[in-house]
Amino acid sequence: MSTTLFANGTIVSATGRQAGDVLVDGERIVAILAPGQAESMGVVADRTVDATGKYVIPGGIDAHTHMELPFGGTFASDTFETGTIAAAWGGITTIVDFAVQKTGELVQDGLAAWHEKAAGNCAIDYAFHQIIGGVDDDSLKAMDYLVDNEGITSFKLFMAYPGVFYSDDGQILRAMQKAGENGAMIMMHAENGIAIDVLVAQALARGETDPMYHSLTRPAELEGEATHRAIELSKVAGNVPLYIVHMSASEALEEVAAAQHAGLNVFAETCPQYLYLSLEDHLMQPGFEGAKWVCSTPLRTKHEHHQKDLWKGLRMNELAIVSTDHCPFCMKDQKELGLGNFSAIPNGIGSVEHRMELLYQGVVTGELTLERWVETCCTTPARMFGLDKKGAIAPGMDADIVVWDPNTKTKLGINDKHHMNMDHSAWEGFEIDGKVDTVMARGMVVMENDTFTGKVGHGQYVKRGLSQYLH
Amino acid sequence: MSTTLFANGTIVSATGRQAGDVLVDGERIVAILAPGQAESMGVVADRTVDATGKYVIPGGIDAHTHMELPFGGTFASDTFETGTIAAAWGGITTIVDFAVQKTGELVQDGLAAWHEKAAGNCAIDYAFHQIIGGVDDDSLKAMDYLVDNEGITSFKLFMAYPGVFYSDDGQILRAMQKAGENGAMIMMHAENGIAIDVLVAQALARGETDPMYHSLTRPAELEGEATHRAIELSKVAGNVPLYIVHMSASEALEEVAAAQHAGLNVFAETCPQYLYLSLEDHLMQPGFEGAKWVCSTPLRTKHEHHQKDLWKGLRMNELAIVSTDHCPFCMKDQKELGLGNFSAIPNGIGSVEHRMELLYQGVVTGELTLERWVETCCTTPARMFGLDKKGAIAPGMDADIVVWDPNTKTKLGINDKHHMNMDHSAWEGFEIDGKVDTVMARGMVVMENDTFTGKVGHGQYVKRGLSQYLH
Amino acid sequence: MSTTLFANGTIVSATGRQAGDVLVDGERIVAILAPGQAESMGVVADRTVDATGKYVIPGGIDAHTHMELPFGGTFASDTFETGTIAAAWGGITTIVDFAVQKTGELVQDGLAAWHEKAAGNCAIDYAFHQIIGGVDDDSLKAMDYLVDNEGITSFKLFMAYPGVFYSDDGQILRAMQKAGENGAMIMMHAENGIAIDVLVAQALARGETDPMYHSLTRPAELEGEATHRAIELSKVAGNVPLYIVHMSASEALEEVAAAQHAGLNVFAETCPQYLYLSLEDHLMQPGFEGAKWVCSTPLRTKHEHHQKDLWKGLRMNELAIVSTDHCPFCMKDQKELGLGNFSAIPNGIGSVEHRMELLYQGVVTGELTLERWVETCCTTPARMFGLDKKGAIAPGMDADIVVWDPNTKTKLGINDKHHMNMDHSAWEGFEIDGKVDTVMARGMVVMENDTFTGKVGHGQYVKRGLSQYLH
Amino acid sequence: MSTTLFANGTIVSATGRQAGDVLVDGERIVAILAPGQAESMGVVADRTVDATGKYVIPGGIDAHTHMELPFGGTFASDTFETGTIAAAWGGITTIVDFAVQKTGELVQDGLAAWHEKAAGNCAIDYAFHQIIGGVDDDSLKAMDYLVDNEGITSFKLFMAYPGVFYSDDGQILRAMQKAGENGAMIMMHAENGIAIDVLVAQALARGETDPMYHSLTRPAELEGEATHRAIELSKVAGNVPLYIVHMSASEALEEVAAAQHAGLNVFAETCPQYLYLSLEDHLMQPGFEGAKWVCSTPLRTKHEHHQKDLWKGLRMNELAIVSTDHCPFCMKDQKELGLGNFSAIPNGIGSVEHRMELLYQGVVTGELTLERWVETCCTTPARMFGLDKKGAIAPGMDADIVVWDPNTKTKLGINDKHHMNMDHSAWEGFEIDGKVDTVMARGMVVMENDTFTGKVGHGQYVKRGLSQYLH
Repeated sequence: MSTTLFANGTIVSATGRQAGDVLVDGERIVAILAPGQAESMGVVADRTVDATGKYVIPGGIDAHTHMELPFGGTFASDTFETGTIAAAWGGITTIVDFAVQKTGELVQDGLAAWHEKAAGNCAIDYAFHQIIGGVDDDSLKAMDYLVDNEGITSFKLFMAYPGVFYSDDGQILRAMQKAGENGAMIMMHAENGIAIDVLVAQALARGETDPMYHSLTRPAELEGEATHRAIELSKVAGNVPLYIVHMSASEALEEVAAAQHAGLNVFAETCPQYLYLSLEDHLMQPGFEGAKWVCSTPLRTKHEHHQKDLWKGLRMNELAIVSTDHCPFCMKDQKELGLGNFSAIPNGIGSVEHRMELLYQGVVTGELTLERWVETCCTTPARMFGLDKKGAIAPGMDADIVVWDPNTKTKLGINDKHHMNMDHSAWEGFEIDGKVDTVMARGMVVMENDTFTGKVGHGQYVKRGLSQYLH
Repeated sequence: MSTTLFANGTIVSATGRQAGDVLVDGERIVAILAPGQAESMGVVADRTVDATGKYVIPGGIDAHTHMELPFGGTFASDTFETGTIAAAWGGITTIVDFAVQKTGELVQDGLAAWHEKAAGNCAIDYAFHQIIGGVDDDSLKAMDYLVDNEGITSFKLFMAYPGVFYSDDGQILRAMQKAGENGAMIMMHAENGIAIDVLVAQALARGETDPMYHSLTRPAELEGEATHRAIELSKVAGNVPLYIVHMSASEALEEVAAAQHAGLNVFAETCPQYLYLSLEDHLMQPGFEGAKWVCSTPLRTKHEHHQKDLWKGLRMNELAIVSTDHCPFCMKDQKELGLGNFSAIPNGIGSVEHRMELLYQGVVTGELTLERWVETCCTTPARMFGLDKKGAIAPGMDADIVVWDPNTKTKLGINDKHHMNMDHSAWEGFEIDGKVDTVMARGMVVMENDTFTGKVGHGQYVKRGLSQYLH
Repeated sequence: MSTTLFANGTIVSATGRQAGDVLVDGERIVAILAPGQAESMGVVADRTVDATGKYVIPGGIDAHTHMELPFGGTFASDTFETGTIAAAWGGITTIVDFAVQKTGELVQDGLAAWHEKAAGNCAIDYAFHQIIGGVDDDSLKAMDYLVDNEGITSFKLFMAYPGVFYSDDGQILRAMQKAGENGAMIMMHAENGIAIDVLVAQALARGETDPMYHSLTRPAELEGEATHRAIELSKVAGNVPLYIVHMSASEALEEVAAAQHAGLNVFAETCPQYLYLSLEDHLMQPGFEGAKWVCSTPLRTKHEHHQKDLWKGLRMNELAIVSTDHCPFCMKDQKELGLGNFSAIPNGIGSVEHRMELLYQGVVTGELTLERWVETCCTTPARMFGLDKKGAIAPGMDADIVVWDPNTKTKLGINDKHHMNMDHSAWEGFEIDGKVDTVMARGMVVMENDTFTGKVGHGQYVKRGLSQYLH
Repeated sequence: MSTTLFANGTIVSATGRQAGDVLVDGERIVAILAPGQAESMGVVADRTVDATGKYVIPGGIDAHTHMELPFGGTFASDTFETGTIAAAWGGITTIVDFAVQKTGELVQDGLAAWHEKAAGNCAIDYAFHQIIGGVDDDSLKAMDYLVDNEGITSFKLFMAYPGVFYSDDGQILRAMQKAGENGAMIMMHAENGIAIDVLVAQALARGETDPMYHSLTRPAELEGEATHRAIELSKVAGNVPLYIVHMSASEALEEVAAAQHAGLNVFAETCPQYLYLSLEDHLMQPGFEGAKWVCSTPLRTKHEHHQKDLWKGLRMNELAIVSTDHCPFCMKDQKELGLGNFSAIPNGIGSVEHRMELLYQGVVTGELTLERWVETCCTTPARMFGLDKKGAIAPGMDADIVVWDPNTKTKLGINDKHHMNMDHSAWEGFEIDGKVDTVMARGMVVMENDTFTGKVGHGQYVKRGLSQYLH
């Protein structure tokens, strides 16, 4: 097998940084060497990547993507092919996508369909969470099967979207009890969808149809409420681990932080959009422009403390992970389905390419340390979701490595860096004080010199173990 | 009209006590006089009640009773006649009972049925809250009508009992919005009935059928959860006033206290059973005995802090009111419906006769001041529920007056003081360091010398105004 | 003795309001009568005050004044004579002033000096708290003596003003232990004076000498800190009752609210200046103008939540009382002592005349109910500080009565309503939607028809009992 | 230089574990190798330590020791020689001891004296914090000097011990301001010593002289109070980093957790004694036995939640570090100084040898993960206190390595494993399910085969950088 030496860089981990070299042999990291040690040991690699002046970090893991997700009569515009290529461009070497059980479907059938979409089409490794759209005796049994045989150890439930993915509190309780037995993690879309649907109907009845009403009909209190409810149900189920997805509201963060202070295994992620974008600056743009930023949970008002609190939560580990909830839709033919009716706009923003960049900007502005950037974007996602060979630069781990150049800038936008299959960018005009320089995914350099050098089909399905992150 | 002078007692109000006389003329209090003043003004009453060494307090108001309530295939065993006579024995001069709209029924029809049960049958005055068992366009309109025309300004919803009284969060939100418009108070049975029903079914499937499982399948977390949810929904509805009924759990109290600290109009009541009785000492009694204490919310474990916290909450005004949730069932033919299946035991405890006594005992043991006893049992219920002529001893108010003797004891129990229509007492063996001495209800002495002297039919329906207790 | 009938008004108490007449005989209220009852009983009063369309409320009690207080080389500019006359103009019928023990002085000597200042000079009744400026064996013994013999049941300590009134934490603990024995209340000036003195010295060293720096060197955190510390010390002393004076900061309110939620007997007052005035609008006025509003605790920035939180706390009973901390100084010769050195400006604002007016304005703007206005300004001060014959309109109580006209406006300011001995008003330009109409103090009408009709010397010293407000 | 290969073990870091080999060359780690990689690269080490079936972890760092500390008329019984040898036996490869400035002494003189004690006498590396016993202009300047030139970047202040180490709140504020300028960390002994001294004097006056009164006169509230005060002062100083030492009480933990939730750089450590020992089981042992466990902060009652909360805090990173506060005194001639007067018992417990063992037991009992054990005992102490070459197994780091055998037991006690210079063990009778197998300190194997193989004088002084742990 071929060897590669990442030489002369600063290796950054979740707990520190030091000068050193990383030796890759085939698909695995085989050695970490002090400066000069490679020479003194006579290491001759087939290829050397010079990382002088750059950071060498673990490949990013985006633990929340929705490639080709059917939603509101259309499909998320990135396939596993286009999506994983864009991810590679962004320093992501593993995604965890959501296989979908729709109500009335068998879990295994939904999973099989997802494997079919992905198999052979991915440029980087991928794993699956499973959405359970219908908790019943069958799907509860399937949860055991997926944990034991399919490498799927996390299950997502929805407190929103009645009639589509929604589980009632009894179903949630039963799924949590099952997770308590088999060690899985319950992931939760925490919004009170029953109440939201009343507000949406009332708004539409009043003629409030513009994209901004998407946020105004999903008040932060209803995210906080559902978060609290999910936590209490997890306690009743026997302190079952719980992971709140795409947190956008201070109210929800308060609940998670209180649960952690009580010693519970309650975790949460936020997404770049909630750290940077807002109702006023984005959803309220003139005409139908705001549709670009319709996602759920929604963008929040910037006049309150949401963004500041989320950055704080991320810094203090109240928020464990930043994922993207990558769920791209084009304006044309897709977002446009909601012209004249905000509730028909497909929900989603595409960010899989920009997560590492956007969070690094938080390092530049002083919101996070370099180590915390690596922890929230690489190491914790791997540990949280049982990706045992991912998320850290250590001998024996998969050779998922990103060289990050802190000395160059990156412009985001449809005519700048943009490889997702979207006719617009939610991040148009953003400029990052750093750059994805080189990306190795399981031993293959998939991006260097501003060129995609990977291969569709290189990405393999990764079976996951149980969460390593449980206290 | 005939006059009565309550002479030489200590008049106790919510904010103090002083020696003085109370002059009643017909159905109204017409004067409060300093000691000696009656003589110097030449007042000659038709009758003088000597209250030397005793407290003269406003008649008690029990803001939560269920006379003749249909429940689980039977009816609460007290009629308006037997129940209001028992209330009179207990120093209660007004009850607020719950008119019931069952799902599928018109609100007005439910109310009319309730009027029919009560009219002409009450020994003391009565008013109604309205249970809304089916929130829809019709019942929402009915809420306006009842506020405007029927003197009903509070509406009770249930987060428990799916299929019976249950409202989902969307229905709750709509009813709250309506209350926000018409000024009514929303009362809430706050337990997550959807999750509880799962726990009940699981327990029964495991063969756990004894009365104690009634409490074990209704964990305190699910009372706290529902309380939190109700509060958040009330915020989304526009900070609509909310009143949590029959609170039993510290978890729920925490939520209410936090809402009050945030400045919200959120109130709560507890009941004597939650202050004194417990899972271990009562629900777990051998055989089917525990059925006597099956009520919802359930009795809690005494090994935690529930009772201590509730007394504290009552003292600090986190709990505004003590009501009884009087809902009596006999063991014979009624509670026995649940032999072999705790979930079929009719839910309810009878206490309307003993509320003043049981709470006075809290004064004796130092949990409350005398003034706070009057406030929580008389004055606040009147103000909270718009009983403008009730709850205080002041000129112009209804002549609802209790003479309380602190120098005598009262034994509770089926062979002691017991006038409710029950074949047992939930309070068997309790002894109180005080006694209801004389009770005047709207000008008529209805109890004196350990004799009921009132008249069925004396009690009139009282139309209520909006809550005076809103900040 | 002469009788007076306050006829046809609306009598407002802490718990309600009703039409009625109040009959006064000499110095006492002897009867409260329903409308029409006076006539039917043939009551012929020597004098009738027609209160048609007006509120009849208990006389105001200002529980925190500093007449003739020596401070910073000068004396508060109101004597007991001028101060109590101004109070009468403002509907205040009782003040509780602070007798002062200076360090090194005997408590009894300090008290005797205070009696000498006040005796024969007051237009309204007065009582004393005692400042303990030097906690030692002697002053601890004196505390018992004052409780038992002098009618002084509350003792004020200072966590600020090192070298003047300051007690260290050990002294505070000892005084609290003593209060735990004799039932007294500890009142606390809660600011960390040791840290503040460092900030003051540093500011002066930087040449920051203007009045605004008075507030900037007394950050809200140091009020919150001292409040927390006082509470913890009161717990160590055995849950001794504690009353925080002149609260100005949200941080302090949080601590008091948390203590109350824990069930502790911790109380607090705020003052009108903290509800209405601010650093930006007042302390930062050009030149030396800001000196008018130098008081401690200081006015806070209006850009934070202090005022909003204080109104909320007042509404929710987290703040029990509004006092004035009346401590007036003229600009000329007094405030001017601090020209060029803010720390030499005598600390104090004069408001004793305007408390009822300023708080009534809160009723007009919806911050408080009419009942809560009476409670915080009249009833609770009496109960909190053991003024057993004050604070309520009830037979047997002192005839301290205010007729309040809600239909007229009152302009405050040096050329408008202003009777305090000050060459300026802290309230210049304020206009109130209501008016003190008539004031009776212990049976004597002291203000009516915009004329002071009282008599210096009418006011008597009132011995106080223990607090009635302890749970 | 000589090379050593730690082969075939499981390398455990703060964020994971993997099979691998560690290659040491001289004093540094030079390579981490995947299994088999050493052979394939032809690595031939001078020595191989076989770690099959064992954990390879970073050397422990005890960030809180007091060798030879003068206290109460005697000296801590471990010299730097005996103490560092005992530490080596316990898997500790670096200690951070406290240089002492006594009041009236120059900081540099105190530091020089400490260097003199330690230089040439240590078996393992050592660094210093500096105690500032007298905050004044000189010592503030010295803080800058020590940060810039002496590698001392943390300064400890005392809110206890008036007259000895005590700083008042003004001094604390000034030292914090200085730390805000130079980037240092303020460490705090957080107990209200002024109040405690009153309680101590009162207890002694009542004849309460036994060791148990040491704890009873230092109530948990006064630790919580001081912790809160220190946090508030750090906010006033400009959000200066703060580290609370030897936390023993839930009340203090609550304050730190709240500060962290607010996003502040507030950290804390606890010690093994607070996790395992109690007032009832240890301080209350008959006769004078309890003296062995007299330390400050004191052992707490086991009937409350302290131990449970501290374990929780450790698990959830509310507590960042476990140190020992190693401060040993013999019973003979030392602890005995307090016979008949608990306040004269030298304060301190010796645990430097047992920290890794005692905390590993928490892994066995499920309180912590293996990774969290490494993090709290090795990695975080290094990052927190700027020991840039310590605390992690990574190329370029100092070769501080412990091989831990999870398959053997260790008995603690004076006749079992015990190498501290004490005539008793605070841990007598404890048995650990694991064992320190081999210890390498900066390249030298100092303990193996149950034999100390190190050398006094091998340990060097380590200059520390600023904390890496600040967000």
